Amino acid sequence: MFKLFYSPGSCALASHIALEEAGAEYTVARINFSGNEQRSPEYLAVNPKGRVPALVTDDGILTETPAILAYIAQRYPQAKLAPLDDLFAFARMQAFNSYLCSTVHVAHAHRMRGTRWADDPAAIEAMKRKVPESVGAAFALIEDMLQGPWVMGERYTICDPYLFTLAEWLDGDGVDLTKLPRVIDHRTRMYERPAVKRAIAQERG
Amino acid sequence: MFKLFYSPGSCALASHIALEEAGAEYTVARINFSGNEQRSPEYLAVNPKGRVPALVTDDGILTETPAILAYIAQRYPQAKLAPLDDLFAFARMQAFNSYLCSTVHVAHAHRMRGTRWADDPAAIEAMKRKVPESVGAAFALIEDMLQGPWVMGERYTICDPYLFTLAEWLDGDGVDLTKLPRVIDHRTRMYERPAVKRAIAQERG
Repeated sequence: MFKLFYSPGSCALASHIALEEAGAEYTVARINFSGNEQRSPEYLAVNPKGRVPALVTDDGILTETPAILAYIAQRYPQAKLAPLDDLFAFARMQAFNSYLCSTVHVAHAHRMRGTRWADDPAAIEAMKRKVPESVGAAFALIEDMLQGPWVMGERYTICDPYLFTLAEWLDGDGVDLTKLPRVIDHRTRMYERPAVKRAIAQERG
Repeated sequence: MFKLFYSPGSCALASHIALEEAGAEYTVARINFSGNEQRSPEYLAVNPKGRVPALVTDDGILTETPAILAYIAQRYPQAKLAPLDDLFAFARMQAFNSYLCSTVHVAHAHRMRGTRWADDPAAIEAMKRKVPESVGAAFALIEDMLQGPWVMGERYTICDPYLFTLAEWLDGDGVDLTKLPRVIDHRTRMYERPAVKRAIAQERG
């Protein structure tokens, strides 16, 4: 039995969808960023980084989306959420998720979280202005590599809920969606999955 | 036989050390950032992201340090560079590497690569000013979690060359090293490893 700490609209949705896809038993705990709850002593005891997601397991607490996603895939091999029998394919999947966390999510974060990297209000505004371009460029690379219905091709993997979660932010980031037809098709395809519907309903409910 | 594309002083050093630790057969190819070689058509054909590292394998090309490191550990199980038989320990290891790529490396990158996230020269200067604080805060969390001689405790893993590589940047980032005695001890311990010495010598040679 897992417990997932999340905030609505955050990247925790990727792990939430993966738990649903895996058929895992879990509960969720909402952290309200609007009340700065992620910096409360109670939550910092869960995750000293003050971020979501955090996944409480019987063995301890896990953080960082790429690590949580791979863990869920490995813990529920019957759900076939990763190519566990093919080291290179597994690594390619991990490379995609690593790009999402280190480049795509980071580009997006400059719209709302600029204070992480500068104190000057004018600098924070300058960061916001570049988000459509920087997020757009990161997604253009993804657009070029998408070939099949899913990130890894014919097979649905843990890359898909993660891409979907970040693609949900494109509209707010002011990215030109007409340049990303495959990414938008992928997003539409994801909305149709029961696991995605359940996770979103649970976060909104 | 692998081929590792690297640039001296970049995060590719982590993968380079891991290849040495694993006893892998590999060659290296240097990409000169000073000549903007990472944006050449030849290199973009290797890695469309225009970054290092890139690892050419018999199965295809891998990018992103956390993915490459886990792949090396899985391909060379006899080198014992990861707890492959313990899913939770493997996930914790991955979480650490994910934090390094998405938070620590990103904080550092605001010193030299500010143009990724803003166009205004004053904003880029404002980003540089915050690097000692943002990198320092990220390393303070690592300082708190370091308990044993190595990141994962008694056992050396792929987390160690990655932490070492990023800790090499602390001086240039203007971080107060006196607040990070465990990180600095770890860095010193890493310098003593033959694999680390060989990788550094090869990059400088």
